[in-house]
Amino acid sequence: WGLHKRVGDPMVCILGSGDFSRSLSSRLRCCGCRVVVGSRDPQRLPPALAEAEGSLVFLALYPEHYPSLLTLRPLLSGRILVDVSNASSLKQEGLSNAQRLAQMFPCSSVVKGFNGLSAWTLLTGAYDHSRQVLVCGDCPSSKLSVLALAQRLGFGAVDVGGLSASRALEEAPLLLFPSWRGPLLTTMLLFSFFYLYIALKNVLMPFLDRAENNLHHLPLITVNQALPAVALVMLSLVYMPGLLASVLQLYRGTKYKRFPDWLDQWMCARKQLGLLSFLCAALHAVYSVCLSIRRASGYMILNAAVEDKKKVLVWRSDLYLSSGILGLGVLCVLALTSLPSVGQALNWREFTFVQSGLGYTSLVLSVAHVLFFGWDFAFLPRAYQYYLPPVFLLSLVLPCCVLIGRFLLLLPCCSVPLNRIRRGWEKNKTAPTQH
Amino acid sequence: WGLHKRVGDPMVCILGSGDFSRSLSSRLRCCGCRVVVGSRDPQRLPPALAEAEGSLVFLALYPEHYPSLLTLRPLLSGRILVDVSNASSLKQEGLSNAQRLAQMFPCSSVVKGFNGLSAWTLLTGAYDHSRQVLVCGDCPSSKLSVLALAQRLGFGAVDVGGLSASRALEEAPLLLFPSWRGPLLTTMLLFSFFYLYIALKNVLMPFLDRAENNLHHLPLITVNQALPAVALVMLSLVYMPGLLASVLQLYRGTKYKRFPDWLDQWMCARKQLGLLSFLCAALHAVYSVCLSIRRASGYMILNAAVEDKKKVLVWRSDLYLSSGILGLGVLCVLALTSLPSVGQALNWREFTFVQSGLGYTSLVLSVAHVLFFGWDFAFLPRAYQYYLPPVFLLSLVLPCCVLIGRFLLLLPCCSVPLNRIRRGWEKNKTAPTQH
Amino acid sequence: WGLHKRVGDPMVCILGSGDFSRSLSSRLRCCGCRVVVGSRDPQRLPPALAEAEGSLVFLALYPEHYPSLLTLRPLLSGRILVDVSNASSLKQEGLSNAQRLAQMFPCSSVVKGFNGLSAWTLLTGAYDHSRQVLVCGDCPSSKLSVLALAQRLGFGAVDVGGLSASRALEEAPLLLFPSWRGPLLTTMLLFSFFYLYIALKNVLMPFLDRAENNLHHLPLITVNQALPAVALVMLSLVYMPGLLASVLQLYRGTKYKRFPDWLDQWMCARKQLGLLSFLCAALHAVYSVCLSIRRASGYMILNAAVEDKKKVLVWRSDLYLSSGILGLGVLCVLALTSLPSVGQALNWREFTFVQSGLGYTSLVLSVAHVLFFGWDFAFLPRAYQYYLPPVFLLSLVLPCCVLIGRFLLLLPCCSVPLNRIRRGWEKNKTAPTQH
Repeated sequence: WGLHKRVGDPMVCILGSGDFSRSLSSRLRCCGCRVVVGSRDPQRLPPALAEAEGSLVFLALYPEHYPSLLTLRPLLSGRILVDVSNASSLKQEGLSNAQRLAQMFPCSSVVKGFNGLSAWTLLTGAYDHSRQVLVCGDCPSSKLSVLALAQRLGFGAVDVGGLSASRALEEAPLLLFPSWRGPLLTTMLLFSFFYLYIALKNVLMPFLDRAENNLHHLPLITVNQALPAVALVMLSLVYMPGLLASVLQLYRGTKYKRFPDWLDQWMCARKQLGLLSFLCAALHAVYSVCLSIRRASGYMILNAAVEDKKKVLVWRSDLYLSSGILGLGVLCVLALTSLPSVGQALNWREFTFVQSGLGYTSLVLSVAHVLFFGWDFAFLPRAYQYYLPPVFLLSLVLPCCVLIGRFLLLLPCCSVPLNRIRRGWEKNKTAPTQH
Repeated sequence: WGLHKRVGDPMVCILGSGDFSRSLSSRLRCCGCRVVVGSRDPQRLPPALAEAEGSLVFLALYPEHYPSLLTLRPLLSGRILVDVSNASSLKQEGLSNAQRLAQMFPCSSVVKGFNGLSAWTLLTGAYDHSRQVLVCGDCPSSKLSVLALAQRLGFGAVDVGGLSASRALEEAPLLLFPSWRGPLLTTMLLFSFFYLYIALKNVLMPFLDRAENNLHHLPLITVNQALPAVALVMLSLVYMPGLLASVLQLYRGTKYKRFPDWLDQWMCARKQLGLLSFLCAALHAVYSVCLSIRRASGYMILNAAVEDKKKVLVWRSDLYLSSGILGLGVLCVLALTSLPSVGQALNWREFTFVQSGLGYTSLVLSVAHVLFFGWDFAFLPRAYQYYLPPVFLLSLVLPCCVLIGRFLLLLPCCSVPLNRIRRGWEKNKTAPTQH
Repeated sequence: WGLHKRVGDPMVCILGSGDFSRSLSSRLRCCGCRVVVGSRDPQRLPPALAEAEGSLVFLALYPEHYPSLLTLRPLLSGRILVDVSNASSLKQEGLSNAQRLAQMFPCSSVVKGFNGLSAWTLLTGAYDHSRQVLVCGDCPSSKLSVLALAQRLGFGAVDVGGLSASRALEEAPLLLFPSWRGPLLTTMLLFSFFYLYIALKNVLMPFLDRAENNLHHLPLITVNQALPAVALVMLSLVYMPGLLASVLQLYRGTKYKRFPDWLDQWMCARKQLGLLSFLCAALHAVYSVCLSIRRASGYMILNAAVEDKKKVLVWRSDLYLSSGILGLGVLCVLALTSLPSVGQALNWREFTFVQSGLGYTSLVLSVAHVLFFGWDFAFLPRAYQYYLPPVFLLSLVLPCCVLIGRFLLLLPCCSVPLNRIRRGWEKNKTAPTQH
C-alpha cells in the first residue's frame, strides 16, 4: 500500500529500549500507528522525535532515570508525556512518579496510564477490550488522546480523574489480593481453633485419661473433622452481615445512614468467604471419600497398625493421600486462573504469585506424593527386576531437576546478578556508563 | 490541581438521594465529572442545576414520583433526562416509564439507560467495559452524549434504538432465567418419569408381588438409577434438533425457509440442555462413588439393616449423604457464578436469586447434613466427655442463628417495615410529607 | 417515533441474501440503523442502493461470486465495500479475497472485517463488546466508519492495519487450536512412552518370565499408572523453560538478546502444558478412587477373575468404568467452553469442533458406558419381569436414534446434497441459473 495512504495514521514516540518498549512498539505497529523508538540518551535520540510534531511520547524508563531526560526539555515541551511506571514499593512518601515528572516538565502535559500492562500482555494479549487501561491526568484533551490510543490498541480505556489519582494507579500492580486477606485469616483462625479443639478432645485427653495413643489421627482424620466445621461456619458468615444490616436498618428506622466501617468491609468480603467455604467443603468431600476407601480396603493394614511398630505405615499412607489431594487442589486453582475472565481480574503481581508460587507448591506436593508412595520399595531389589527401574523413579527425574534448578537460582550467587540483568544491566558495559 | 484545569470536564446533575444516586455520583466523580445532586423537592434543589446549562440530568427516583418533578419543567426544558428506572412488574400495560416521562416533559429529550446496573455495581464494579449499558431514545445526539458518558464510566455502551425499545430495557432486570425454563422443565419431567418408573419396577411391584419391602431404596439408590438415564436422554436432546434441521433442509431442498418456531427455540436451548445433562451426570458420578463406598465399608450395617428395626439407620445415612452431596453441588453453582464472566451475564434479579436463594438452600442442606450425621449421638452422655461438646454441635451454633434470624426477618412484622425502609421511608418523618 | 427523528441514523446496504445477511440486517436494525438488503443479481437490486449515497455496503457473498458484481461497478464506486468472507482453505496462494476485491473495484474503498462472526452470534450474541471485530483496510477514514459501526453493534472494534493483513483475518476462523498442537503431542508421546514401559514391565516381562497373564491390567490399571507419571513430567515441563531462560540470561550476561525460537514457543505453551497436566492428574484421581472402590467392594469378583473364564468380567467392568469417566470428562470440557469468557476466546471452527465433535464423543462414550453396564443382563428374562424393560434400555432409545441419524447424515448420499444446500443451492432452481 502506498505511503500516501498512511498519512492519517497517528505517530507515537517511545523513549526507552527495554521489554516494555519493544512490546509496545510492536503492538502500536500492529494497530497501524507509526512508531519512533529512542534511547533516553540524547546522542542516540533519533532526529524523528525532533521532526514529528504534536505526537505522544511514551516514557518506558525506570523513574530513577527521569532526570537524564532534562536535557530533552525543549524537544518535549508542548507534547504529551505518558508515564507508564509503577511504584517501587507500597506506602511510599511524597509525590508519585507521574507528579514528579509533571514538576520536571512544566511545559509538557503528563498523563499516567498503561502501567498495569506487562510486556507479555502487550505482545500476546488478545484485542478484546476487557483488559483495562486506566488513565489519569490534569489536561482533559491530552487524556482524550491517550484514551483514544488505548482503545485503538484494543484495550478498554477508562478516565479515572486528575493526576492526583496517579499514586493509586502506580501502586495497583503491587497489591496482593487485598480483598482476600481478611477472609483467609478468618479461615485459618477458625481452622486452628477447630483443629486444636478436636486434637484436645480426641488425641490429648484420651492419652492423659487412659494412655490411648491416637497420634496418627492428626494428619488426616483430625483435619477432615475440622474442615466441615470450618466450611459451615464460613458459610454462615456469608449471610450474617446481610442480617445485621437489616436489623440495623430496622433499629435506625432509615436506610440513609451509612453502615459502620466493619460492616461495610464484611459485606464486601462475602464473595471471598463463600469461595473459601466452598473450598473447605470440597476438600472435606475429597478427604471423606479417601478415608472411606482406606477404611474399607485397608482394614487389615489399619488393624495391624494399631500395634506400635506399624504406625509409621499409617503416617506414610496419610501423608501420601494428603499431598496428592492438596497438590491436585492447588493445580485446580491454577487451572481456574487460566480462565480468561479470571486471569484478567488479577494484577501482574497476583498473577505471578498464583502461576509461579502456587505452581511450585503444586510441584513440591506432587513430588512429595510420589515419594510417600514409593518410600518403602524404592530400595528393594525386586523393584528393579528385569533391570527396569520403577516408573515413579523415572517420573521424578525431571521434576527434581526443575526443583533443584529453582533452588540454585534462589541462592544469592545467582539471584543477585539475575535481578541486575532484569533491571537492564549488561555484562560488557563498563561500570560508569552502567545506568 | 487548579480549577482552571477542570473546565473541560462534563457536568452531570442527579435528581434523587437514594443508594443509586449516591453510587452514581461517586462513580461520576471518580471518572472526573463534576456532579450536582439534588432532591426532587424544588425547595431543596441546589441553584447549581439552574446555572449549569446543557448538562445531563439523571432521574434517580421511583417512577411514581415523576409527577412531583412537573414544577421543575422550565428548568429541565432543553436538557437530556436520563431515565434509570426499572419496571415494577412484568407484562404491564400501557406506556413504559421512559415513554410516560417523555410525555410529561415534551421540551426535554428523554434517554433510557443505566437501569440494569445496581448501586453495588456502580460503587465496587471494575472499570472493565464488559458490563453493558444499553441505551435507547428518540434523539440521536442526546443518545450519543449518554453513550459517551457510559463509556467514560468504564461500561460498554450500546445503542438499542428508539424509545419504543425502553419497555424491553425496563423489564430486562426482572426476567428470571427465561432461557432455562424449558430445559429445566424437561429435566424435571424426565427425572419424574424415570424415578416413578424405577420405583414402580423395583419397589412397588416387588412389594405387591412378594411383599418385599424395598422402601429404603427411594432416597438414594432409585435417584442414582434415574439420574444417568436423564443425563443420557438430555445429552441426546442436545444433538437432536441439529439432525432435525438437517433432515428438514434435505426434505425442503433449500435453506432459505425459516424453521418452525419450536425448532428455533429448541436450537437456542441446546447449551442449557447440555449443562443440565452434565449436572445430572456429575451428580450420578458422585452418588455412585458414595454408594459404592457405603456398600463396601458398611456391608455389615446394610446386612443388619435388612431387619426392619434397623432400616431407620439406612434412611439416616442416605439422607446424610444426599444432603451433603446436594449442598456441595449448590455451593459449586454459587462458586461458578462468582466467576467474573458468568456473574456479568446475569441480571440483578438472577444474581440475587443465585447468591441469596441458592446460598440459603446450601446452608439449609449443610445444616441438615450435619444434623443427620450427629442424630444418634447428640444425646449420648459419652459425646460430652471431658465436658467438651461434640464439634458438630459447636459448628451448628452460628448457622442456626443465621437461619433463625433469616426466618424472623421473613415474618410480616419485620419484612413489611424493612421493605418500606428500602423504598425510602423514614421513621422520623410525619406521614403527610412521606412521599 | 416520527420519521424526522431518524434522519441522523446511518444507512447500510447488504448485498447477498444468506443467513449472514439476514442476521446482520436484523442486528443493524436493532441498533437503530436503516438497512437495505439486495441480491447480487442486478435486476433484483433495489433502487435504494442507487439512491442512498455515501453509505456502507456489506458484501455477504461467497468470494467466488464477486465477479457477478462487476456490472454494479458504477453504483459501488466511491463507496466503502466491507468484505466479510473467510478463506476457503489454509495456505492458499496469491491474493486474499479482500485484495482481489480491491483490484476488481479500484474506485471503491475495500475494508476487511466482521468475518470472524457467525450468523448465530449476530442474531443471539450479547451486546457485550468482549466479542471482537478485527478490521483492516488501506483507507483510514473508511476504516473509521466501519470501526464505529462495529462498536455501535456492541462489538469491540480493533484496527489491525492495512489490507495486507486481510489474509490473516480470513484464515483466523479456520485455525484449529494452533497453540494446543505441541502440548497435546507432548502429552500423547509421554503417555505412550510410560504406557508401553509399564506394559513391558508389568505385563509382557512377567508373561515371558513366568507365563503370568496380566493382560487384564491394560485397560485400567496400566492407564492409571501411566497418568500420574505424565502429569508430573508435564508439570515440570511448565517450569523448565523459565529456568532455561534464566540460565541463558546468566550465561549471556544480558537480557537484550532474543531467546531462540524453540524457547519462545515453549514459553508460550506453558499455559496449555499446565492445563493438560491438570487434566492427567484429575483423571488419575478419579481412576484411583474407582480402582480402590472396586478393589474393596469387588474383592471376591477379582479373586474369582484370576481364573481364566471370569477374566471377561474384569474387562467389562473396567471398560464400563473407563467409558463413564472419560465421557464425564469430555462433558466437563464441553461445560467449560460454555462459560462466556472461554467460549468467546474460541473461533468458529474451534467452537464447532468442541461443541459438535466432543459432544458426539461424549454421547458415544456414554452409550458405551451404559452398554457395558447392561451387557450380561440385557438378554436375561428376569430383566423384563412385570413386562417392564430395564431402565438402561429405555434410556438408550433416543441416544441411539441420534447416533444412527448422525451416521446416516455422514453418508455421501446425504452429506453431498446437504453441503450443497448450505452453500446456497436450491432444489427448485434450474441448473443454468444456479450460481
